[in-house]
Amino acid sequence: MSATSDIREIVEKNNSMLCIGLDLDQKRLPTDYASTVRGWYDFAVAIIEATKDIVAAYKPNLAFFEERGAEGFSLLEKIIEKIPDEIVVIADGKRGDIGNTAGHYATAAFDRLRADWVTINPYMGYDSIRPFLDHKGKGAFILCLTSNPGSRDFQLLHVLNKPVYMYVAEKVAYWNKEQNLGLVVGATHAEQLAEIRKVARDMPILIPGVGAQGGNLEKAAICGTDDFKHPALINVSRTVIYASQGNDFAEAARAEVEKLNAVINELRSKDSKD
Amino acid sequence: MSATSDIREIVEKNNSMLCIGLDLDQKRLPTDYASTVRGWYDFAVAIIEATKDIVAAYKPNLAFFEERGAEGFSLLEKIIEKIPDEIVVIADGKRGDIGNTAGHYATAAFDRLRADWVTINPYMGYDSIRPFLDHKGKGAFILCLTSNPGSRDFQLLHVLNKPVYMYVAEKVAYWNKEQNLGLVVGATHAEQLAEIRKVARDMPILIPGVGAQGGNLEKAAICGTDDFKHPALINVSRTVIYASQGNDFAEAARAEVEKLNAVINELRSKDSKD
Repeated sequence: MSATSDIREIVEKNNSMLCIGLDLDQKRLPTDYASTVRGWYDFAVAIIEATKDIVAAYKPNLAFFEERGAEGFSLLEKIIEKIPDEIVVIADGKRGDIGNTAGHYATAAFDRLRADWVTINPYMGYDSIRPFLDHKGKGAFILCLTSNPGSRDFQLLHVLNKPVYMYVAEKVAYWNKEQNLGLVVGATHAEQLAEIRKVARDMPILIPGVGAQGGNLEKAAICGTDDFKHPALINVSRTVIYASQGNDFAEAARAEVEKLNAVINELRSKDSKD
Repeated sequence: MSATSDIREIVEKNNSMLCIGLDLDQKRLPTDYASTVRGWYDFAVAIIEATKDIVAAYKPNLAFFEERGAEGFSLLEKIIEKIPDEIVVIADGKRGDIGNTAGHYATAAFDRLRADWVTINPYMGYDSIRPFLDHKGKGAFILCLTSNPGSRDFQLLHVLNKPVYMYVAEKVAYWNKEQNLGLVVGATHAEQLAEIRKVARDMPILIPGVGAQGGNLEKAAICGTDDFKHPALINVSRTVIYASQGNDFAEAARAEVEKLNAVINELRSKDSKD
């Protein structure tokens, strides 16, 4: 089984393309959960328990745990243990270093945290990505065109007839011999997402930027999959996990996931009738 | 005092441009130190004690500590505590994420680890760098042209009349309003280092790639400083910390640092006589 076929399988089984970003932020958590490590753990586990049959993936962003130092790292290990095996876990660290060093990051993410996929920054090129591909059944999403304003600074620079991010997309598609690479493309760039989908062949695309950042869900689903022909994961973080500030946060998260799934699945059923 | 003036000061005081990479690798440590956290700590502290009056900076690469999980993070905190205040500590994590998230990485590096500088990947642009500049007296080295083979994949792509890495150098120089930004340029690209030095104005350049990776020390010192007019730190890791596989590793490290300092300081004194 390749890392990509694991994504296809869970999307099918749970009838969902959603990835839930586990961005645990002290300032946003319900008061009863905000101040202790135990509170963070209980919050995350409640979100997982409430949504695990209707999502495809969870994506903890490592920054939120790194900020808490050693106890943050232990906490993340414990949270990941509570995620069912069949659900994809993406360690979102956007790491990238020279080959020898990148191997240590790969061990941290795959062997210690037991994540299934990672996110990687492409700036340092192939030897910074290569060590992540040596772990059987594991995969790496490479940043291509990100959802933030700063994506304009370098990713959109034009090299001859195309932007830097298209070079990234093409190179990554070429490197994808083992069905273990994917791309990160922000929902805030829907048109470019459709173009990238064409060169991405059958690679999965991880799509952040829906919701708080302003990306459109319907466009992300259609452009990111080329009308549901190829795999994509749409990430939602704050709109789901902070759907309620009260102690009903887990039910509110589930309701929000159901709403988002329904929007996507209606598009999908329309598409299959066309 | 700006983060850049702190670098100038310690280079002057210790008469050294050297930065020692604390890349603690189980496979390379002397046998007596390799297998326990205590051994790693004792090894790192012995290296620091033996060299702290003749180097300008220490640069732990976070990958080597992240691989050990929570205990690795605690270990790194404890090692950094042993470094004298006046010596620059660079948390080499090459992080980079959207603004909101980058702020959490900045807190981790500056407030928790108490590093003075970080390394940052520029691919996500200004808002991924900005939060690191809000910490008074702290600084960020931005990856510009890296020392590894993969630097060719995207950094050397030509946009109109210049490569991507020159856009990075120019933008970072423009963003450097508070003397808290620098660039990372590999010693394996000596000619390009001289070109980048011109657009970098008075920013410090962190130069890895001397030694094991094949970069030339003399060229790095001259090109990286424009004949000692501007600040640069030359990083050496494996050739110093693994100078001996025996229990005399600390003395061997000091001897290696003295040798490298002597080579640079002879060039410098020649230069001042010209």
